[in-house]
Amino acid sequence: MENLECIFCQKTYPLDLFFPFCPECKEPLLISYPSKKRRFFLRRQSLGKYLDFLPLKEINHNLILGEGNTPLLRLNRLEEKLNLSSVLAKNETINPTHSFKDRGSSVAVQKAVSQRIDKIGTVSTGNMAVSTAAYGARAGLKTYVLLKEDISQEKLLSTALYDPVLVIVQGDYGHLFRQSHLLGKKFKIYFMNSVDPFRIEGYKLTGLEIYLQLKRQAPQYIFVPLSSGGHLIGLMRAFQDLKQAGFIQESPTFVGVQPKGCSPIAQAYAQRRSRFKRIAKPDTIAQAISNPDPPGGNLVLKMIRENKGIILDVSDKEILAAQETLAEQEGLFCQPASATVLAALLKLSENMEFRSHDKIVLILTGSGLRAVQALESLGLNVHQASLSNLEKVLNSLLI
Amino acid sequence: MENLECIFCQKTYPLDLFFPFCPECKEPLLISYPSKKRRFFLRRQSLGKYLDFLPLKEINHNLILGEGNTPLLRLNRLEEKLNLSSVLAKNETINPTHSFKDRGSSVAVQKAVSQRIDKIGTVSTGNMAVSTAAYGARAGLKTYVLLKEDISQEKLLSTALYDPVLVIVQGDYGHLFRQSHLLGKKFKIYFMNSVDPFRIEGYKLTGLEIYLQLKRQAPQYIFVPLSSGGHLIGLMRAFQDLKQAGFIQESPTFVGVQPKGCSPIAQAYAQRRSRFKRIAKPDTIAQAISNPDPPGGNLVLKMIRENKGIILDVSDKEILAAQETLAEQEGLFCQPASATVLAALLKLSENMEFRSHDKIVLILTGSGLRAVQALESLGLNVHQASLSNLEKVLNSLLI
Repeated sequence: MENLECIFCQKTYPLDLFFPFCPECKEPLLISYPSKKRRFFLRRQSLGKYLDFLPLKEINHNLILGEGNTPLLRLNRLEEKLNLSSVLAKNETINPTHSFKDRGSSVAVQKAVSQRIDKIGTVSTGNMAVSTAAYGARAGLKTYVLLKEDISQEKLLSTALYDPVLVIVQGDYGHLFRQSHLLGKKFKIYFMNSVDPFRIEGYKLTGLEIYLQLKRQAPQYIFVPLSSGGHLIGLMRAFQDLKQAGFIQESPTFVGVQPKGCSPIAQAYAQRRSRFKRIAKPDTIAQAISNPDPPGGNLVLKMIRENKGIILDVSDKEILAAQETLAEQEGLFCQPASATVLAALLKLSENMEFRSHDKIVLILTGSGLRAVQALESLGLNVHQASLSNLEKVLNSLLI
Repeated sequence: MENLECIFCQKTYPLDLFFPFCPECKEPLLISYPSKKRRFFLRRQSLGKYLDFLPLKEINHNLILGEGNTPLLRLNRLEEKLNLSSVLAKNETINPTHSFKDRGSSVAVQKAVSQRIDKIGTVSTGNMAVSTAAYGARAGLKTYVLLKEDISQEKLLSTALYDPVLVIVQGDYGHLFRQSHLLGKKFKIYFMNSVDPFRIEGYKLTGLEIYLQLKRQAPQYIFVPLSSGGHLIGLMRAFQDLKQAGFIQESPTFVGVQPKGCSPIAQAYAQRRSRFKRIAKPDTIAQAISNPDPPGGNLVLKMIRENKGIILDVSDKEILAAQETLAEQEGLFCQPASATVLAALLKLSENMEFRSHDKIVLILTGSGLRAVQALESLGLNVHQASLSNLEKVLNSLLI
């Protein structure tokens, strides 16, 4: 059985699925592994390939929804523009519920079922609510989804279809996050929230896939949108594991990207503080990563400093321009939150010299379909025709 | 170079990408292959695996968006309910633009680029518009999308992001389909519409993947939503190819499913007619397959009869119930159009005896996110709480 560890206090605690926070410093706990040899099992299915890297004894294939195994695509036009040989997009929108959250939900639900837990939950307004509800339904678990008041009808409906217990909660979101874990412990509901340690282990698989897709090499840079911190922490842990197991010599440089309108971690990083300050009024189009009080914020700051990573923020204008570029030039339609990574690469490349052979991976975390309203600012250019004058209209548009 | 053939007139014609219809009977032409030995190249990437089954000389990997390789999932609760050992969902919603259309767009765009065509187009209101615009953008082709007047703002925006030329055309949709090919021929715009022969060859890959995922066996039944006919024709051709190459002895029984509110092909099938009659006023929630004048309708009727297939229709009520069942019991969120296949299986299983070892595959064609408005009829059960009474509310919901 694995333990939990606080990397701030450097102490180890027995596993507590319901309340994985340090009793001393209150920071999130991470899985602590006994040191072991790690192999890939490439002939196995899905999660089974990575069993040596996961806190699971075996894989229950009935709980799988086909997550992962997402494409890593060359972005040719961008490579040309930036004079780089390898800019690649890891397209996590091609997951069962169209976001990277499925990687984490999948592993956390495996753990829940193996521990005979029958109630799971999450606090979310978007991608995570849908993902947790889907995996909960697949596993036949009773699933509690706690939502903010201002949730859109669209998000409510696409979560509701899986038939979870839906509770809209008035009040501060950060408090709700902590409250959910306290009540979860009391009522035996496993709240697999954004920095749940098993969820984070699931995010490692994106990193391991990138390593395999690059023919067993680490890229030099990985750009990832940064909100609660769980995703970035998981990715960093993947390459720590690979290094520890002797598969790679050097970890990538990680670049966490926040939107200017809600960038508590980027601000602390810029000011060389070890703790972030809560943002009073978030205001950004990148809603999926607009977390004013990120539970993994301090952990990310510590890990990024120790690994010589970078955290920066980008404006809504830069985000929307990047979203358009990805669609128009590469055929990729992601959320504004995901487009932050391209905005950040363009921004960094103005001041920083990448080496021409550097491999740069941008992680696209969620589908644009989850945030269609963000497109409303788009300048639409629609032509009109009738059947009888279609020939004339098309002719005028041939250029 | 491959030819085109009319399976009605049994004549062969030279390839015409712009106007692939029989000059005599006006029906769609299909690719005619020289007889050859076929192999799988399982160590190659994406389309490359299936090169022997495709009308392409080589694969240009810069045009790929990571389509295909979608999960085939056991539906355990349904198997139990129906007392069957293998009911499986082929989840085509996990494609780059969240529908099966990407399989076809991918192959058609490969062909366009290899033939040095620089303008492509499509006539569509939904999944196909988005898919064609995405692959067109990826390939750097000028892409013309002709849309119906009543297109929703949401669909318009998610197509527009890829920056195609958008033309809204007033008038009859069936006429527009034919007109697009005539104008395409004139202006050298390759309209890769629903029954384009290269698009249809792309749909074969779903069938080939199913065969490989079942450890080189054909399933006994494949259920697929039926609209223009292109998808079903492609799937049937996949198993024809497998049989011809000696990989399988027997093809699956294909079941094409239409919504009652727009079922021209199912009606003709029930009345043993060889030609469908146009539907005057389509009225169904399954918008993605509501085609009153399906260009491949007669071809489907012929192929289904020759292959002992089945065509049936299901009501909107059955469709919505099936959509809920897939989400609640299996964690799968598809469009109403896709849920028709489960509705049809439930309906058929009332009157038909499946053998307990039969392998039944349901093809889920498109994501529920593309039709969120269809969920509005859902009975929403949302609880309210504040931070201070959350404990009480959760306690009351524990059961």
